[in-house]
Amino acid sequence: MSVLIVGSIGLDTVKTPVEEHADLLGGSASYASLGASFFSPVKLVGIVGDDFPQSEFDFWKSRQIDATGVQRVAGKTFRWSGEYAWDMNTRETRSIALNVFEHFRPELPVAYRETEFVLLANIAPALQSHVLDQMKRPRFVVADTMDLWIEIARADLDALLPRVDLLILNDSEARELTKETSLIKAGRKIRKVGPKYVAIKKGEHGALLFGEDEFFSCGAYPLEDIHDPTGAGDTFAGGMAGYLASASGAPDFARLRRAVIYGSVLASFNVEAFSLERLRTLTMEEIRGRYSVFKAMSAFDEPA
Amino acid sequence: MSVLIVGSIGLDTVKTPVEEHADLLGGSASYASLGASFFSPVKLVGIVGDDFPQSEFDFWKSRQIDATGVQRVAGKTFRWSGEYAWDMNTRETRSIALNVFEHFRPELPVAYRETEFVLLANIAPALQSHVLDQMKRPRFVVADTMDLWIEIARADLDALLPRVDLLILNDSEARELTKETSLIKAGRKIRKVGPKYVAIKKGEHGALLFGEDEFFSCGAYPLEDIHDPTGAGDTFAGGMAGYLASASGAPDFARLRRAVIYGSVLASFNVEAFSLERLRTLTMEEIRGRYSVFKAMSAFDEPA
Repeated sequence: MSVLIVGSIGLDTVKTPVEEHADLLGGSASYASLGASFFSPVKLVGIVGDDFPQSEFDFWKSRQIDATGVQRVAGKTFRWSGEYAWDMNTRETRSIALNVFEHFRPELPVAYRETEFVLLANIAPALQSHVLDQMKRPRFVVADTMDLWIEIARADLDALLPRVDLLILNDSEARELTKETSLIKAGRKIRKVGPKYVAIKKGEHGALLFGEDEFFSCGAYPLEDIHDPTGAGDTFAGGMAGYLASASGAPDFARLRRAVIYGSVLASFNVEAFSLERLRTLTMEEIRGRYSVFKAMSAFDEPA
Repeated sequence: MSVLIVGSIGLDTVKTPVEEHADLLGGSASYASLGASFFSPVKLVGIVGDDFPQSEFDFWKSRQIDATGVQRVAGKTFRWSGEYAWDMNTRETRSIALNVFEHFRPELPVAYRETEFVLLANIAPALQSHVLDQMKRPRFVVADTMDLWIEIARADLDALLPRVDLLILNDSEARELTKETSLIKAGRKIRKVGPKYVAIKKGEHGALLFGEDEFFSCGAYPLEDIHDPTGAGDTFAGGMAGYLASASGAPDFARLRRAVIYGSVLASFNVEAFSLERLRTLTMEEIRGRYSVFKAMSAFDEPA
């Protein structure tokens, strides 16, 4: 099955304590769609300017990512520049230029509207809702969000949540959204306002998944060094959504657990290089290898 | 098999945002020995004053905790008073009175010296070494430590580490000890200075365990409310050491994984009530029940 993915597409300049790279492919939809494409064909929705490299369209084509839904308009592509602190845990935005993204109004090609799986990658919740409005009857809707929308577009976000099957957000966002310190309380509270499932990303501490009476917790892949954390969360969401879409029908909790592991595996590869460079060369064999490491590092026997 | 446990025994006054209780049993050895006693007989080493309640000695006797090694001397028992912040994550020491603990010099009864399993619960590393000096040939030595000793007794701690099989410490202590931000790097680096195994406690994020070529990661039990975090780490260490001592011979990594789960289970019960109150009524059936919850919440299938 295909997964429809909408989000931002941009050109990023990223500085870490050891390296700086300019004008690399970025944006939530770029990471999410490449992550998802390992498991399912992707129908991508976004906007770029006339400075956006044709080579990326060619790359998408080579990776079962349908970019018919990417509007190419006169003007400059969205640009973001950020700098990471010495510990790679905090980052500062150095500059942001919305450019053509400022007036982005996602319009779904007719061929996209019957897609059964949807990932609303991180963009304004009003745009996420606007995408859902155009869809016929999506079977499973995954949405990602960020602190910015909790702060400046809370009403739009509240309106979106009841339409979402799986909400993905990070630990500080879950706390901010619910005003709960305990992530356990936060995850359960978010479920009550709509999403059937909630996945909380905790970076180096792994992820939590909440279902009706079910709960899943996993650690992060034991990486010693991180080269660029940009897009880790988007890649996680893309990996989850892509894996979920690879079988028809609404997923059960066992399938969602595996999706969290695949999302974690993809995010762990993504942070090993700048931009999407690591994902561009990644193979299914490498993904399966790291999935096995997750199995081994999480396993323990019955008491004996 | 028995496990010898040395550490502090005190009377604590604890204030949380909702409750305050005074003069409750506390101290690293109190928590650790009760935690360990669910799995193995304990030989307890410590010091108390003449104000220490006889009822606690009676309780220990009822729970296979041999208190022959607890010195009872003229003067007051060690007292600590602390207050937790609103989020229960940070605490401030309000007062501390070492009292009889100030001149504590652990002396092992002859019958203790051949014990094969040892838990050096949190006390000054010089005292921990002094206990090891008196032992015949311990088969497996577990040690806990804290930030204070890293800061004021680093040389003593460095001298102790090569004599330790399993070092238990929390995430911020692991970072402080190694000056590494990555817990993965920190855990591996600590192994290089002596301990064959390192367990890093991460509170609500669970625990990590490092072996030679092996790695284990588990989440924390999903508690919504914490009533008193005091002693959680000591209980974790006690549960681990008690479980390890319940079979003879040096444990393998599979056994250490299970020990981490048992330690996590005990710590999760401990924080549900003030002082040791929850552990006093805890049953093996409850422990096994929560172990099963850990199994269920950590499980995921092979890809399908």
